[in-house]
Amino acid sequence: MKTIGILVAAAAIIGFSGTASAQFAKPEDAIKYRKNALFVMQQHYARVGAMASGRVPFDAKVAAENAAIAETMSRLPWAAFGEGTDKGDTKALPEVWKEQAKFKAAAEKMEGEMSKLAAAAKTGNLDSVKTAFQSTSASCKACHDDFRGK
Amino acid sequence: MKTIGILVAAAAIIGFSGTASAQFAKPEDAIKYRKNALFVMQQHYARVGAMASGRVPFDAKVAAENAAIAETMSRLPWAAFGEGTDKGDTKALPEVWKEQAKFKAAAEKMEGEMSKLAAAAKTGNLDSVKTAFQSTSASCKACHDDFRGK
Repeated sequence: MKTIGILVAAAAIIGFSGTASAQFAKPEDAIKYRKNALFVMQQHYARVGAMASGRVPFDAKVAAENAAIAETMSRLPWAAFGEGTDKGDTKALPEVWKEQAKFKAAAEKMEGEMSKLAAAAKTGNLDSVKTAFQSTSASCKACHDDFRGK
Repeated sequence: MKTIGILVAAAAIIGFSGTASAQFAKPEDAIKYRKNALFVMQQHYARVGAMASGRVPFDAKVAAENAAIAETMSRLPWAAFGEGTDKGDTKALPEVWKEQAKFKAAAEKMEGEMSKLAAAAKTGNLDSVKTAFQSTSASCKACHDDFRGK
């Protein structure tokens, strides 16, 4: 049973890194890509946040546009955390690779929350946007706490 | 007539930079954002290119996915070329701000070609992808030649 467990884990790791190594010419590109995608996401997310927190007036159209882009961006970074991308210009902790199932779950949690935020923004209801923004922010923080160094 | 021309030009500049300054906390963020968005676009575009050039086997699903992301990314960088973002860690030439209409046209040309590429990739026809990829690459190069330093 233990052997099977190890084989399954190994297959999961190969699948994870296989995707990444096929996609990026070199590890530095993968690291740059995931940071770039997350920065673009964060910029759009922050525009929704500025409205959710009342720092700027709520504009339903702008909120929906930015939340939709943030949702698209939220799906991109994960393929770039493949094997061999743990060293270099990155704040990613070793836990990303040591606890891949937990990391994957955290990433999917954030993606799900970002989708809910995009759906809420589409309705044009500010209260829904506020609620969804809080849940999404909590999922960002949870992943940063566990998987991102200072 | 000359005065009206100048006023129209001034309004265009204010509109252009107004959007950008409302969106980015500081000029460095705008510069980082546009570079990040273009890098993410380029990574996905290159995956389509690898198939268009025969370096990797054509996979219609993968081509369509990557072309769709490249299309989405192609719309993002332009709002980040606002007034005051010409200095700093950027290769953007002064022509971006001196010849705004020409720059806008070049950006829109590339967006249009990228949309055609995404449409071609959706059909699953490799020859269509090859043709669209060539036109898109020409639009990238044209904009780089005129608006990007070495």
